Amino acid sequence: MVTDTEPGREILSATDCWDRLREAPVGRLAVIVHSHPEIFPVNHLVDDGSLLFRSAEGTKLAGAVGHVVAFEIDGYDLEAGTAWSVMVKGQAVEVTRMDDIKDILGYPLFPWHIGHKPHFIRIEPISTTGRLYQLARNELTANAGG
Amino acid sequence: MVTDTEPGREILSATDCWDRLREAPVGRLAVIVHSHPEIFPVNHLVDDGSLLFRSAEGTKLAGAVGHVVAFEIDGYDLEAGTAWSVMVKGQAVEVTRMDDIKDILGYPLFPWHIGHKPHFIRIEPISTTGRLYQLARNELTANAGG
Repeated sequence: MVTDTEPGREILSATDCWDRLREAPVGRLAVIVHSHPEIFPVNHLVDDGSLLFRSAEGTKLAGAVGHVVAFEIDGYDLEAGTAWSVMVKGQAVEVTRMDDIKDILGYPLFPWHIGHKPHFIRIEPISTTGRLYQLARNELTANAGG
Repeated sequence: MVTDTEPGREILSATDCWDRLREAPVGRLAVIVHSHPEIFPVNHLVDDGSLLFRSAEGTKLAGAVGHVVAFEIDGYDLEAGTAWSVMVKGQAVEVTRMDDIKDILGYPLFPWHIGHKPHFIRIEPISTTGRLYQLARNELTANAGG
């Protein structure tokens, strides 16, 4: 970790980013649909230096395949007073051959819900960035009860 | 809640969506930067039927103000076997008069971290959608230890 140019913010190493991506149970995919951004929660899998997720037909699939997308995970530690986020930007491609999924046996890829999701999408990373933030007092509970 | 056209998925009412938006300590903002989507975690506040957040100068501010953006929150309940997400799409405008923020006294708006964030951005909703998903077995822990 190195200190960022902005106060209270540190840059996470690439190794740290990918460790967090492997551990996170769910992330959020942003795609462009009709010229506007949309966000979808997805269950992802780290596979051979890329990200995999499953999708049904629909706006998520159409907005992703063949386009540059963003995938983000985040979390916070109230005791440590820190929050973090990792964003992967990359090209989304559909995986049609199951033997192209290197870790398919080691890491079964469950969908976010029980609907039929026959498509496998891979995000081939263009950039991976991670930030650790020092929180300003008890902000994460500021809205609680509001 | 009504059953969606997709199995295992239910639509959350607008009231339920806004209750969840009020309770969530943090959400994710998607904006378009150089024709590609990016995602930023932000602390938000529900104010008079819209969302407010703070921003420093930078890509988040430039990508948001004057554009249609997406804002998303999600969560899951392993015991109940459900996950949910709420997405607000709306026009982002900068708030320049502090007395335009109706709930500014009731709900102090803390930034995600301690950096200087002088800009207040309001998302005026165009659409608010929420979904509740029945999870397919223990998928949320599928990556743990992977």
